[in-house]
Amino acid sequence: MAMSPYSGFLPHGGDVGTARAQFPDAPEPFIDLSTGINPHPYPLPQLPPELFAQLPQRSALDRVIAAAARFYDAPSPDHVVAAPGTQILLTATMALLPCGRAAVLGPTYSEHVRVAALAGHHTKQVSELHELAGADLAVVVNPNNPDGRIVPPPVLLATAEKLRSHDGLLMLDEAFVEVAPAGTSLAGEVGRGDIVVLRSFGKFFGLAGLRLGFALAAPAIAKRIAAWLGPWAVSAPALAIAEAALADAVWVQATRERLHRDAQRLDEVLSQSGLELIGGTPLFRLSRGPAAKALFEHLGRAGILVRYFPENPTWLRFGLPADEASWARLRTALVNFDKQ
Amino acid sequence: MAMSPYSGFLPHGGDVGTARAQFPDAPEPFIDLSTGINPHPYPLPQLPPELFAQLPQRSALDRVIAAAARFYDAPSPDHVVAAPGTQILLTATMALLPCGRAAVLGPTYSEHVRVAALAGHHTKQVSELHELAGADLAVVVNPNNPDGRIVPPPVLLATAEKLRSHDGLLMLDEAFVEVAPAGTSLAGEVGRGDIVVLRSFGKFFGLAGLRLGFALAAPAIAKRIAAWLGPWAVSAPALAIAEAALADAVWVQATRERLHRDAQRLDEVLSQSGLELIGGTPLFRLSRGPAAKALFEHLGRAGILVRYFPENPTWLRFGLPADEASWARLRTALVNFDKQ
Repeated sequence: MAMSPYSGFLPHGGDVGTARAQFPDAPEPFIDLSTGINPHPYPLPQLPPELFAQLPQRSALDRVIAAAARFYDAPSPDHVVAAPGTQILLTATMALLPCGRAAVLGPTYSEHVRVAALAGHHTKQVSELHELAGADLAVVVNPNNPDGRIVPPPVLLATAEKLRSHDGLLMLDEAFVEVAPAGTSLAGEVGRGDIVVLRSFGKFFGLAGLRLGFALAAPAIAKRIAAWLGPWAVSAPALAIAEAALADAVWVQATRERLHRDAQRLDEVLSQSGLELIGGTPLFRLSRGPAAKALFEHLGRAGILVRYFPENPTWLRFGLPADEASWARLRTALVNFDKQ
Repeated sequence: MAMSPYSGFLPHGGDVGTARAQFPDAPEPFIDLSTGINPHPYPLPQLPPELFAQLPQRSALDRVIAAAARFYDAPSPDHVVAAPGTQILLTATMALLPCGRAAVLGPTYSEHVRVAALAGHHTKQVSELHELAGADLAVVVNPNNPDGRIVPPPVLLATAEKLRSHDGLLMLDEAFVEVAPAGTSLAGEVGRGDIVVLRSFGKFFGLAGLRLGFALAAPAIAKRIAAWLGPWAVSAPALAIAEAALADAVWVQATRERLHRDAQRLDEVLSQSGLELIGGTPLFRLSRGPAAKALFEHLGRAGILVRYFPENPTWLRFGLPADEASWARLRTALVNFDKQ
């Protein structure tokens, strides 16, 4: 299958099937801690069969766009585009721009560099914020994945200002901002026209299989992204679920608190095993240590998938366990590793 | 909302919400005959909540790709790309090509001309097949929507041959080919490298709300389209449903027969009302007459939405009624129109 259309894809978390093949003797169920997805999904409403049968309705899209504008604090619904996942918005947004210089603040989610190059931009990953200033397209994941680094909004606004002077654009991937301190998002600033914000529905709401994401941008840019995605970009079940979820302030608040508690608990479990924690968000924690690869394989054999980064071989990223059985298996596996 | 990202979209069938606003006094339920979607959807399997929660699994994608290769008779799974609907494959495919001359055989589905122009091609709609030969990108919807015209495969292969001589590409939109005579599809020929075939899952399987479509192409092209869509392009529920549906030969055969019977019945109903039928496929019928607009409005007031084409104001397109109540309401509304 060397020629498969999908064979060139970059490795990502969340692929338990591949982990099963790698660790065939691991006990089941496999515990997937390799993503930053909330393991307590928004409860699914009833999904009438018509949602699957008919084309997604324009009125349903309009309601979700309005709910998203409120939830994300975008200037208006005219600043919001819905897409089948944030991933495809990388391509949609980057392909809109004339080919130029793209700079991605890294290390970070690997798809930004891949897609910017695919869209024809002269692309580099940079490690310092000031290196973004000369780019035509600057990309910052904020909070960053996997280290959780947060660039303060005033610093980002100053960067956007510099980019603006030569018609550059700042793309902010805010996939994990729901669990960041209030005021981290620049969703309210997209009306300026030099910032595009990407928001992920599936991570915080725990519904990554549904495929839903949003771009927030000045109306002229939003309109071009929407035209590029075309009609019916988002499935009708995704529209129905998002309409309920985005408006459910009680669930959102309770989930924020729960994720913060669970992240604290995870820190305790990991620290007790002597792991050095170097960052993260409430949806994932990043550890560093010389034994990262050995621990990844030990956990894999114990049926626990975490995220290993071949390009940063001392790092491991841990997502949140979903239930007490998973917490117990993680704790036991870590203790057993210490004993080796 | 003049600035809404979605305000510039072309009109299409299937938007009952807009019809309700246009005909506020129409009886409910509104009967949607404005699309070419099978009104008897493939029965939904159980969808476990994990499908919505976890990222779509690579193994599930691989199984659907294999099932699609078999169902569509593609040369191999390496020739198959899955996408969230065929619509986005128009953009994905057209944006891959260097900007050149695009020619769309029309009149046809309006998105091909829109997207080709959006992707930067110098785009024209042509009315004769021989006018495609000089294009860098030639588009044929086969069978065509809305008139059902079928260009015979040998003629299309000769067109592809001409395009090939200057590195041109033939894009065949086979959205309705499941109900066309056997041998109409060129899915088996995509290995040549000068033909890309687009297939719609939602129309024949009656699941348009799910968003699923396929591109069939030579592996090098398929790989570029897949890279452009990125990982997790298709939702996990869509993968689960398609895996079952594409392999269900019994349902497929029964559905083909049912759609042919229903189309014949629709022809009888329309003919009895004196409508001139000028084409179609078993999923929709096209009529022509000077009173098309008046009939569209009469049916709308009766709670029946059909497809009117402002650019061809004597045409009306009728989809298949879903149940006996809908057949009866259509028949009654047509009789009442005759009496006026």
